[in-house]
Amino acid sequence: MNAYIITIGDELLIGQTIDTNSAWMGQELNKIGIWVKRRMAIGDLPDEIIASLNEAIQLADVILITGGLGPTKDDLTKHVLCKYFGGELIMNEEVLQQVTEFFTRRNLPMLDVNRHQALVPSNCTTLINKRGTAPGMMWEHNGKIIVSMPGVPFEMKHIMSTHVLPKLQEKNDTQVLHETLVTAGIGESFLAKKIEAWEDALPQNIKLAYLPSIGMVKLRLTIRGNKNEDLQTQLLHQFETLKKLVSENLFADNDEPMEESIGKLLLANKFSLSVAESCTGGFIASKIVSVAGSSKYFEGGIVSYSYDTKQNLLNVKKETLETFGAVSEECVKEMCKGVLERFKTTYSIAVSGIAGPDGGTDDKPIGTVWIAVGSSKKIVAQKFLFSKERFRNIELTYVYALKMLMDTIVGGI
Amino acid sequence: MNAYIITIGDELLIGQTIDTNSAWMGQELNKIGIWVKRRMAIGDLPDEIIASLNEAIQLADVILITGGLGPTKDDLTKHVLCKYFGGELIMNEEVLQQVTEFFTRRNLPMLDVNRHQALVPSNCTTLINKRGTAPGMMWEHNGKIIVSMPGVPFEMKHIMSTHVLPKLQEKNDTQVLHETLVTAGIGESFLAKKIEAWEDALPQNIKLAYLPSIGMVKLRLTIRGNKNEDLQTQLLHQFETLKKLVSENLFADNDEPMEESIGKLLLANKFSLSVAESCTGGFIASKIVSVAGSSKYFEGGIVSYSYDTKQNLLNVKKETLETFGAVSEECVKEMCKGVLERFKTTYSIAVSGIAGPDGGTDDKPIGTVWIAVGSSKKIVAQKFLFSKERFRNIELTYVYALKMLMDTIVGGI
Repeated sequence: MNAYIITIGDELLIGQTIDTNSAWMGQELNKIGIWVKRRMAIGDLPDEIIASLNEAIQLADVILITGGLGPTKDDLTKHVLCKYFGGELIMNEEVLQQVTEFFTRRNLPMLDVNRHQALVPSNCTTLINKRGTAPGMMWEHNGKIIVSMPGVPFEMKHIMSTHVLPKLQEKNDTQVLHETLVTAGIGESFLAKKIEAWEDALPQNIKLAYLPSIGMVKLRLTIRGNKNEDLQTQLLHQFETLKKLVSENLFADNDEPMEESIGKLLLANKFSLSVAESCTGGFIASKIVSVAGSSKYFEGGIVSYSYDTKQNLLNVKKETLETFGAVSEECVKEMCKGVLERFKTTYSIAVSGIAGPDGGTDDKPIGTVWIAVGSSKKIVAQKFLFSKERFRNIELTYVYALKMLMDTIVGGI
Repeated sequence: MNAYIITIGDELLIGQTIDTNSAWMGQELNKIGIWVKRRMAIGDLPDEIIASLNEAIQLADVILITGGLGPTKDDLTKHVLCKYFGGELIMNEEVLQQVTEFFTRRNLPMLDVNRHQALVPSNCTTLINKRGTAPGMMWEHNGKIIVSMPGVPFEMKHIMSTHVLPKLQEKNDTQVLHETLVTAGIGESFLAKKIEAWEDALPQNIKLAYLPSIGMVKLRLTIRGNKNEDLQTQLLHQFETLKKLVSENLFADNDEPMEESIGKLLLANKFSLSVAESCTGGFIASKIVSVAGSSKYFEGGIVSYSYDTKQNLLNVKKETLETFGAVSEECVKEMCKGVLERFKTTYSIAVSGIAGPDGGTDDKPIGTVWIAVGSSKKIVAQKFLFSKERFRNIELTYVYALKMLMDTIVGGI
């Protein structure tokens, strides 16, 4: 089975909106063994909608359309599709009730345009949208499946997960299973070399994907087979081997964001955390806090952008700063100790570096970063030389700091 | 003139990469009066490249292609295009020299595949790429312009800005000028109402675009005309009127990110800043620090996620916390004063709120945020009720805090 994604909206063409929907859909389809053949973005024009749909129906088995389902004049998708498939718009009572509730709950007046959201083409399957007022629509037409969904990511994901993906999975004869792990602190090519022999010997029905991002590489192991096969055992057997091979760089054996893995580990052990940040300027703290419920293990942090702050708030010694500078093993260890004592936490992280684009010297070029992680028992520090780009350096510092913290906790320090 | 964007790469179809290139290109083309008709993403397959190119040439004047120009086996774009336009690959000495320098400077060995990057189709215009090893290529074919560029955003933007956009601007008879301003703290529909009469009376050759994002709306005024007309005076006249109409919500009369505008203002006046963050957990600090050179005006901050920290580090009174709670006018004002004194800065920001998804009460529902901004002269605080979504609340708090700071500085408090 393959798919064609059509995204509708002028805002995509003028670049006002970055299309994250297609990427998410591509990932989810890929997970259930459906390949996206093409993605097309078009404007809110009936002729464009029809032309791209004609093309898509010729080329793919599944056509997923997003956008143009809002209540305003420029939202034409529903009308165009209704006509395309030879239906007429009729009021759907279930949707109407749900739209009415939506407005009642919010104490908002309901206008005619809102009521019209409940008008649905007579010949489609209505896909209830619990996160908004525009329902999804599905047609099965000459063996092809065509789905239209709102462009709001939150609503599209809900309709995809609840209605579309299960339906496609059922239609697809193939069974596809995945296991993913996260490595940090090793480049893609080095990682590939490390697991080369194992990868080459993988059975035909198991594939490995490298998913690199700044400072980390996710490895996703995928097995395909018939629905009645026991694929789980085969997959887990290989996954266990892979985990052992990359153990040195393993961050987590699942697909969660780093800050969530760390959060769960801290919470499960009733540990607490504080951070002292120089070059990252609050980035590490804000990532930790992005996880709901982080107040249960995160006490807070200090962003110390000046010598004064490092001395006054983190008890870094004046001599340390004068002798070694702020970007040094000595300073970052004192920062780590300082914040640990201030916040009385189980663990703390401290970072100090030169993010750039200015401030580099021959001795300490741009991209030089010291990271310290520790507890009352022990503080360890490590020096890194990252890149020339400010934001990249900030993000890399974050990834490596979390990797060091993970190793420290798992190592029982 | 209109354009068709083709992005090539399997990583786009499986959703491993989010396509930010197309959005950027759409924005830049729009600025010079070129409309993007369609955007297509396809895999690394010769047939797909040819099929989409055939379609694009039928529909548009300008075809911009990105991706598939790397040195590895799956990079096919150059070979396919070369054949499509009936040329042959020849060594380009200028590119070869530049590629050689690229490797020499990095002390890296140069392989045959790297040398082959300097092979360029005989019948195209070579677009030198100073940020990478793959040059851009341009063909003029039956009155159409076809450009192929690397998919790396940093390289694509360089080739677009240096070679492609100037060329298109020259080809296009139309002159297009823009002026943009940033408003904060007012919704799109309220803003529209405020300037309705003025907008309706705009001359035909001037258009207004609303560019909303979380907590702010940019207004872009665009004038179009012949190249020999004096459009600047007309545009500025309208822009000045617009600025007056939205003065209450005006954040900046240019297109810079908020943190840059604030940074410039602080720097120009030799003011300094510190922040005390509860619910935003370092997000405000990290945004301020994302600007290169921010160490000249940003002293640092305290992320106080617990009562203890608020008391110990920010001198918030125990009674304040017991009587009014952490999310209160009293607490946020004390936090603001505390951080101001700790960091001895001209200004400080303090925020405390309930980001969600838990922690709301009837009295203080999720989305309740108090923001205080002040100097040693005066501290002002304001209460907001944002949304139910954690990240949205964090981002809205940031936008409103910077708006309050801007008003405070401009107001001379």
